[in-house]
Amino acid sequence: MAAGRVRVRREGAVRRLVLDDPGRLNALSDAMLADLAAALDGVAADAGARAVVISGAGRAFCAGHDLKEMSAARQAPDGGAAAFADLFGRCSAVMRRIRDMPQPVIAQVHGVAAAAGCQLVASCDMALAADTARFGVNGVNIGLFCSTPMVPLSRNLPRKHAFEMLVTGAFLDAGRARDLGLVNHVVPETALEAAASDLADTVARKLQVAVRIGKRLFYDQLERSEEEAYRLTSAAMVANMMEPDTAEGIAAFLEKRPPGWVREDED
Amino acid sequence: MAAGRVRVRREGAVRRLVLDDPGRLNALSDAMLADLAAALDGVAADAGARAVVISGAGRAFCAGHDLKEMSAARQAPDGGAAAFADLFGRCSAVMRRIRDMPQPVIAQVHGVAAAAGCQLVASCDMALAADTARFGVNGVNIGLFCSTPMVPLSRNLPRKHAFEMLVTGAFLDAGRARDLGLVNHVVPETALEAAASDLADTVARKLQVAVRIGKRLFYDQLERSEEEAYRLTSAAMVANMMEPDTAEGIAAFLEKRPPGWVREDED
Amino acid sequence: MAAGRVRVRREGAVRRLVLDDPGRLNALSDAMLADLAAALDGVAADAGARAVVISGAGRAFCAGHDLKEMSAARQAPDGGAAAFADLFGRCSAVMRRIRDMPQPVIAQVHGVAAAAGCQLVASCDMALAADTARFGVNGVNIGLFCSTPMVPLSRNLPRKHAFEMLVTGAFLDAGRARDLGLVNHVVPETALEAAASDLADTVARKLQVAVRIGKRLFYDQLERSEEEAYRLTSAAMVANMMEPDTAEGIAAFLEKRPPGWVREDED
Repeated sequence: MAAGRVRVRREGAVRRLVLDDPGRLNALSDAMLADLAAALDGVAADAGARAVVISGAGRAFCAGHDLKEMSAARQAPDGGAAAFADLFGRCSAVMRRIRDMPQPVIAQVHGVAAAAGCQLVASCDMALAADTARFGVNGVNIGLFCSTPMVPLSRNLPRKHAFEMLVTGAFLDAGRARDLGLVNHVVPETALEAAASDLADTVARKLQVAVRIGKRLFYDQLERSEEEAYRLTSAAMVANMMEPDTAEGIAAFLEKRPPGWVREDED
Repeated sequence: MAAGRVRVRREGAVRRLVLDDPGRLNALSDAMLADLAAALDGVAADAGARAVVISGAGRAFCAGHDLKEMSAARQAPDGGAAAFADLFGRCSAVMRRIRDMPQPVIAQVHGVAAAAGCQLVASCDMALAADTARFGVNGVNIGLFCSTPMVPLSRNLPRKHAFEMLVTGAFLDAGRARDLGLVNHVVPETALEAAASDLADTVARKLQVAVRIGKRLFYDQLERSEEEAYRLTSAAMVANMMEPDTAEGIAAFLEKRPPGWVREDED
Repeated sequence: MAAGRVRVRREGAVRRLVLDDPGRLNALSDAMLADLAAALDGVAADAGARAVVISGAGRAFCAGHDLKEMSAARQAPDGGAAAFADLFGRCSAVMRRIRDMPQPVIAQVHGVAAAAGCQLVASCDMALAADTARFGVNGVNIGLFCSTPMVPLSRNLPRKHAFEMLVTGAFLDAGRARDLGLVNHVVPETALEAAASDLADTVARKLQVAVRIGKRLFYDQLERSEEEAYRLTSAAMVANMMEPDTAEGIAAFLEKRPPGWVREDED
């Protein structure tokens, strides 16, 4: 499988999406966004896919938007306004697509994750970073405040720290990104790919329907009152309990034996 | 006072609720939930009760739902659906009861706090942990995603860490639980009970009406816009100022003397 | 510029607001609130002002409300109810004014920040603390729960830690305040003023219109669903892109030269 600027690699039940435009530090160009959207759609529809890892080829994870391409759009009669609206709409849709995927998505970050590249990390369900990784929403340095990256960033970090990143454009090192909640764990760069595969494999070994039930509500319930969140998740627990594989999982646990689950990707 | 599976112990103005079914690691069985609900109701109505500590007897705080009991419910004609809906409803009501109590509630955690047991910790207003305590929402390991525990968990921890716990089923040690916001402080296991009593006593020594005014709005205002939150809390400040004991508290402070408050539990 | 209890000092594009009532530990008296509101209004309307620093004269940042003044209000026929409602309304308006300012506001904290003084820190966009600073919402100690300070505090800290501060009245040292998200950085007291100036200067050097676009939406989008947040911020990104100075900023970046921005305060 391949889709232009995004390579899709299959590792058992894990799908690895590699942003592959290293000459432009994997910038989110029109082509990259289209290919990433297509790759995510493909994985979302792939019943054998149980976890996703997004990484970048070359020396960076992702440097953000493609400023050359954006500048070219200024030649239009409206100065680019329609093109920019379209671009930010497509970019936001890709970020929201990650949340709406049935599978957990892990960002595997090395090198720089800047502006919309940092937004991509914040938009993933989990993130692992190489100890050499750096994270910034540095659009403010060129006069373009990272307003859309602010959406997931300010939902991942304590607000004063998110604010500081946005108005200073300063970068966090990996350890600080972990301490502030932007990434789950930091590992040496040489161990990064294996660590991401381990985490993805761990998730992929869980009962798929349970993970899908859970992820479907995770972000949704966060935006609701606790009362409504409990109503939704209580219904989800009942539905989960009625799954035959869950009955088997619980029975196996009580009988101290491994569950007899059949995995689609091992058929 | 005693209520079957929950022992209620009175220590001055503090009420200690001890989950007491150590043979089942204090699982939240039907009986345990009923007894815990009754104990909370009793404390809520007890004017002399100013702070609550919940702990577990035996080697764990609470291991979550009673899976044997749940499995037995599958024999019903509907496969257990109605029983499960009823169970998760009752469990959520107990968790929400803690929030709606007039008194602050402290979880005193040693050993394992798993699944709904971890939810119980997250649902308390504060939590102290022994250095040997471990926290997990591990239902995913048996095919039952911890959807209802997710509600308070994801409101206590940074979202990427909450997500990781939910989809991996991995346990946090006590130090990590503290660093992520699930518990307030970690102490050696031998010092745990005294530390919880100290914290409860500290709260119990405050003016009760002030604590009740504050707790009543704490969670409510968090779910509202800042504008609405300020409207509600400004009104609460005025009501608080009009309390005679608050007038006395402020006067005493200005006159550099201890306030002449009379405590109901010392009548 | 001066406004009674608040000194306003101009340092290039930075405006320093110094709470200047050291004999009362810069308490938020009626006069102080009026002067602070006026000073904030003045800065908000000052096109040359690009960043704001709030600090306190003397040995504390701010000790909270003026309890003597509040107690005097009890002599009114209604026992002070109307005066207290008016006071908390004015105080909340000042706190919300900081959020609604077009410029980023930095709290520069040394000594004690207590009750409404701690609320003031929480209400600023960013905060720097001297290593000797201490933070508490200690109204509960005199029988007045810090209900209005709770609003920004509980939006800055993990909830169990905010709750603990509110019901115990205990103070955090500077390092703990940083770890919990209440302040961005801690520096030695002798380096505090310079650190705040550095941070303010860093922000002031950014393109002003970009910073204003960003701050305007920061808090607003946090209170909305992600979907709505993306809709608002995408529109903001387009508006930002259409600014001539942003076009220049991006062109300069692509041409590897400094942007030719003209600063109002350097006209």
